[in-house]
Amino acid sequence: MKSDSISTNLRVCVVGAGRMGADHIERLTRRIVGAEVSAVVDADVSRAKNAVETIPSAVAVSNIGEALDREDVNAVVIATPGFLHRDMLLQVRERDLPILCEKPLTPDAPSSWEILEAEQRLGKKRIQVGFMRRFDAEYKRLRGLITSGELGELLMLHCSHRNPETPREFTNEMLINDSVVHEFDAIRYLTGEEIKNVQVRLGRATRHAHSGQHDPQHVLIETENGVLADVEIFVNAQFGYQVGTQAVFEKGIVNIGEDGGPYVRSAGRWGGEITPSFVERFGSAFDTEVQRWVDAAKRGEVDGPTAWDGYATAACCEAGVAAQKSGEKVGVSLKTKPSIYC
Amino acid sequence: MKSDSISTNLRVCVVGAGRMGADHIERLTRRIVGAEVSAVVDADVSRAKNAVETIPSAVAVSNIGEALDREDVNAVVIATPGFLHRDMLLQVRERDLPILCEKPLTPDAPSSWEILEAEQRLGKKRIQVGFMRRFDAEYKRLRGLITSGELGELLMLHCSHRNPETPREFTNEMLINDSVVHEFDAIRYLTGEEIKNVQVRLGRATRHAHSGQHDPQHVLIETENGVLADVEIFVNAQFGYQVGTQAVFEKGIVNIGEDGGPYVRSAGRWGGEITPSFVERFGSAFDTEVQRWVDAAKRGEVDGPTAWDGYATAACCEAGVAAQKSGEKVGVSLKTKPSIYC
Amino acid sequence: MKSDSISTNLRVCVVGAGRMGADHIERLTRRIVGAEVSAVVDADVSRAKNAVETIPSAVAVSNIGEALDREDVNAVVIATPGFLHRDMLLQVRERDLPILCEKPLTPDAPSSWEILEAEQRLGKKRIQVGFMRRFDAEYKRLRGLITSGELGELLMLHCSHRNPETPREFTNEMLINDSVVHEFDAIRYLTGEEIKNVQVRLGRATRHAHSGQHDPQHVLIETENGVLADVEIFVNAQFGYQVGTQAVFEKGIVNIGEDGGPYVRSAGRWGGEITPSFVERFGSAFDTEVQRWVDAAKRGEVDGPTAWDGYATAACCEAGVAAQKSGEKVGVSLKTKPSIYC
Amino acid sequence: MKSDSISTNLRVCVVGAGRMGADHIERLTRRIVGAEVSAVVDADVSRAKNAVETIPSAVAVSNIGEALDREDVNAVVIATPGFLHRDMLLQVRERDLPILCEKPLTPDAPSSWEILEAEQRLGKKRIQVGFMRRFDAEYKRLRGLITSGELGELLMLHCSHRNPETPREFTNEMLINDSVVHEFDAIRYLTGEEIKNVQVRLGRATRHAHSGQHDPQHVLIETENGVLADVEIFVNAQFGYQVGTQAVFEKGIVNIGEDGGPYVRSAGRWGGEITPSFVERFGSAFDTEVQRWVDAAKRGEVDGPTAWDGYATAACCEAGVAAQKSGEKVGVSLKTKPSIYC
Repeated sequence: MKSDSISTNLRVCVVGAGRMGADHIERLTRRIVGAEVSAVVDADVSRAKNAVETIPSAVAVSNIGEALDREDVNAVVIATPGFLHRDMLLQVRERDLPILCEKPLTPDAPSSWEILEAEQRLGKKRIQVGFMRRFDAEYKRLRGLITSGELGELLMLHCSHRNPETPREFTNEMLINDSVVHEFDAIRYLTGEEIKNVQVRLGRATRHAHSGQHDPQHVLIETENGVLADVEIFVNAQFGYQVGTQAVFEKGIVNIGEDGGPYVRSAGRWGGEITPSFVERFGSAFDTEVQRWVDAAKRGEVDGPTAWDGYATAACCEAGVAAQKSGEKVGVSLKTKPSIYC
Repeated sequence: MKSDSISTNLRVCVVGAGRMGADHIERLTRRIVGAEVSAVVDADVSRAKNAVETIPSAVAVSNIGEALDREDVNAVVIATPGFLHRDMLLQVRERDLPILCEKPLTPDAPSSWEILEAEQRLGKKRIQVGFMRRFDAEYKRLRGLITSGELGELLMLHCSHRNPETPREFTNEMLINDSVVHEFDAIRYLTGEEIKNVQVRLGRATRHAHSGQHDPQHVLIETENGVLADVEIFVNAQFGYQVGTQAVFEKGIVNIGEDGGPYVRSAGRWGGEITPSFVERFGSAFDTEVQRWVDAAKRGEVDGPTAWDGYATAACCEAGVAAQKSGEKVGVSLKTKPSIYC
Repeated sequence: MKSDSISTNLRVCVVGAGRMGADHIERLTRRIVGAEVSAVVDADVSRAKNAVETIPSAVAVSNIGEALDREDVNAVVIATPGFLHRDMLLQVRERDLPILCEKPLTPDAPSSWEILEAEQRLGKKRIQVGFMRRFDAEYKRLRGLITSGELGELLMLHCSHRNPETPREFTNEMLINDSVVHEFDAIRYLTGEEIKNVQVRLGRATRHAHSGQHDPQHVLIETENGVLADVEIFVNAQFGYQVGTQAVFEKGIVNIGEDGGPYVRSAGRWGGEITPSFVERFGSAFDTEVQRWVDAAKRGEVDGPTAWDGYATAACCEAGVAAQKSGEKVGVSLKTKPSIYC
Repeated sequence: MKSDSISTNLRVCVVGAGRMGADHIERLTRRIVGAEVSAVVDADVSRAKNAVETIPSAVAVSNIGEALDREDVNAVVIATPGFLHRDMLLQVRERDLPILCEKPLTPDAPSSWEILEAEQRLGKKRIQVGFMRRFDAEYKRLRGLITSGELGELLMLHCSHRNPETPREFTNEMLINDSVVHEFDAIRYLTGEEIKNVQVRLGRATRHAHSGQHDPQHVLIETENGVLADVEIFVNAQFGYQVGTQAVFEKGIVNIGEDGGPYVRSAGRWGGEITPSFVERFGSAFDTEVQRWVDAAKRGEVDGPTAWDGYATAACCEAGVAAQKSGEKVGVSLKTKPSIYC
């Protein structure tokens, strides 16, 4: 692609046709304006073929190189497991295409830094990382309350992140890398500050955790300017999917992620239904995220979390996993932020 | 009793040892300051005896005259069925004792008017009627909002009154006389106005009603100054006991009777428990009602709804029952308010 | 258009470039997949020109005939005042194009019936009426609860519809025709029943109403199978925009339209913000409505409220306006439902 | 007093006629059944005299010894500052009278232990400590949910304790000793476990704190069986008084201390009022506490938190203050629990 600006539809190659990839394919096809799916890549090519069955214009291939060689691909969505991201990102980087990369950018800070270096060599941002909460209406309104100063300075953030259950293979490290990573980014987004250190408390564990998991955990976080955050991460919480944040200001308290929907009184109880998974809770945030990525990509821009955010959260995760093991407070050290991300 | 002022404990004769009477006996004995139970009257004297078992100072008798003759009785609580009230009230009136009479004052307007005439002959108020909602914290705050004018004029009241179920013998008329009567008084209390007319709408009925009951009903009420109120009365609502009012003002809307208590997320649902009966919902209103009656009775006063309120609501109930039968709007006609009630 | 099925984008002519039309133009251009705006019609052609300024492919014309003659128009959205609808609908009907017509279909039942006759002559449904509430997530869930029978039979509906204020020229009739009309359709949608009669209660009026308006009003509605509904319509309610329904079932109560969003504690108060207008409250319902209209139109179908719904609500509005004047219960009489709408 | 059982009214000497003492005097006189105030002690005798002005039967004295010598005193309520408690408790202990001692029992663990030793010498419990939350309906229901096992094991407790403001002389240590002390006891009460260690996090501080205060603070607590608790203590939170706990179970989440009361929509906002102080929030808990103390005292028993609870919380406070200074996790060490408290 020679020009930064794309006047017609974005023609997207989706890499990875698992749950997340299939979700993005449907979204791009049915709900996003100005984009279409041109190619789906999956090492398991039959999965890719299933995914494109109802999209006449799209091809299914097993190899990302093959897709990138096609004329009708001018943007990439990466939805494979994180350990595959580094090589793919570098490969796509060479073609200078806009990328939406599901989190994590890469699984560790050094490899994330390599991506930043590659992007700096090109001299412009091309990668957006899939932290969809930044596109959730309530997170945006809380961010607005923080920057407005209406309630004074932000002092603390109490976060909770509860999933009904996890697959058996979900490890203690994934609890940080796949779940708390969203809180790391949300805290960075809300405060506009980097995270300085992380500590993890392990107490009484649920009987519903799989072997090898210590669940729940209490993660303590401090930002560079002294905001104290804490995260209850509880991935086998049984009752439903629920993500909430309580922000403590000098002059008030704000909660987001409260329950809603039809309000029912029956059988001696009042209340309503809890969302069963992140799909129902953050579905419209995903839509907004992708639409804004598409719109910005056509202008040659990135309008969302960048590779820097991917790198910084990777560093937080590393500290988090170390803190999980040691029980001690672990510092997060970041290199100087390159100017293209400022 | 010669003097209006009583310096020691009020010594109360409770008439009726059923559910309501037993409740008042326990209240007077264990939670009310400045009163004690001296006598319990019940035609079924064994029921009266049970009631006084743990109250050494109280006697059980089968006849109210016998109780009133005792030196140690200087106040009366009437908790018998409504059709017995008229004769008892007149009998107690002769002794000039303070009376707390459970609603209704009497079952119809003419007999209520007789009570007012008797009270007027004595020249002072001695009877309080048991409309306990006036002592509920939320009703009081709503009344305060109305009189303050903070939200402009009150325009409408949407009321609902839901019981989980009724005894088999609960008739269509009792639905007005025993249930809606509370709403009649609450609307009068909140607006500070008399009720001008009543209409009743009958639509689809629940299968859980007993034979002879049409349940729920929608009662339309208009006050003398044009506030429109409507009451959903639903006495076999199954799900729990719930009484609420939504007040519509020129500049805002106020709800009372919302659900509360521990907030639980479990099994895919958020919410809490609904009170099972009026006892849990209005328990502390009953305590406040009786405490204020006791305090006022010792000063020779009435500090709560008077015989006039009993009379006016009896007239509303008559109109309500007529409206239930005719489907038409029925006017409520009241005699001139005697000066002692102004 | 010869074939019922359209394989490429729907090319829409939007008639009316006022607030509602402009809103639809933006929606079709930026948020709806599979459609584009080809022409904008407005008698005030400068308004039409403004509307197409950023849409290179669209033309601005002052006359609907001119637009319909264009090759690149194969669908129509009508967003003009209701009194213009009849003639336009008949004109578009001749070309057999799919139509999304903002409510009302036409302002009265006889002219609506003409539209039905025209559609019947073509032998298929082509018109969808803009009752967007049917596409609101909460209305859909309440409808689901009703049809499931989970809480027993539906018995009553208590509805409220509150706007912060109205333009000076908003008349008493418009209060029924423009506001309560949504409730008429919502009640029909929720119950799956036609409305049998309407009564209107006028009580104390707000000082914030314009001259000629009696506001608020209490509208009583009965469906053919005896569901009692009532609507508080209050169009100068000052405090914000709020639309809610409480459904009374045999075994429970369900509320939709409750408040939500960030929950704030500050300055002695807990709570949150109320939506200022229908745009914030029903914005995503509009999007869903139009997306489903587009998807269905391409298949030659209608997937939403039909001309019959437009006709039936017009009959309700006529009864409502008559009831407003007489204070009496007014019956709604409908012709037999033509088979294409069954 | 020779016998453990008191058949007539408890005749109470209230020590301390400040805010808390005055509150107890009014409570004992007007709301508590079976007790009366016989004497009020205050070093500032004019304050004591004011307090008894409307209680004819009570005397005002400046010295507790003088009060204890009176025939008409058979119980004591201590409501003086904590540093005076030790000597008074020992003095009252000699007379073997029932005592309700406002928290803290004494300001440090060693002096609290002296009280326990004195009580053990008498061989029975006579002291109740004023942790009123144990008598709050919601805390009791949460305790019930924990012991029932209905939601599985309790895993975590997230607590917040927010006051609108503090007097200028409120120190950093008082933040633990006077405020967090309630959370220490509540956590012990809810879990039925002793606290093992305490850590304190200090982050960004509010500008509304007085000099010498670091406010808010985040206190991390671990119970002997591994329940992780955390307390946000924020004593200059401006917005109102609000105390809440969120309990995390294996199968659900429970919140207590949510907001309630009339629900208002006005001026673009929905919501209600926050209680301004602990008096409104815990008023009825205080009443229940004192009533149960009176009832138990007459039977020669204690029905509430004992001197052991006073001692254990004093030890927690010592650890909390040390943790505040060091930033490190500080263990709580307790002597073996004497058998009379088991």
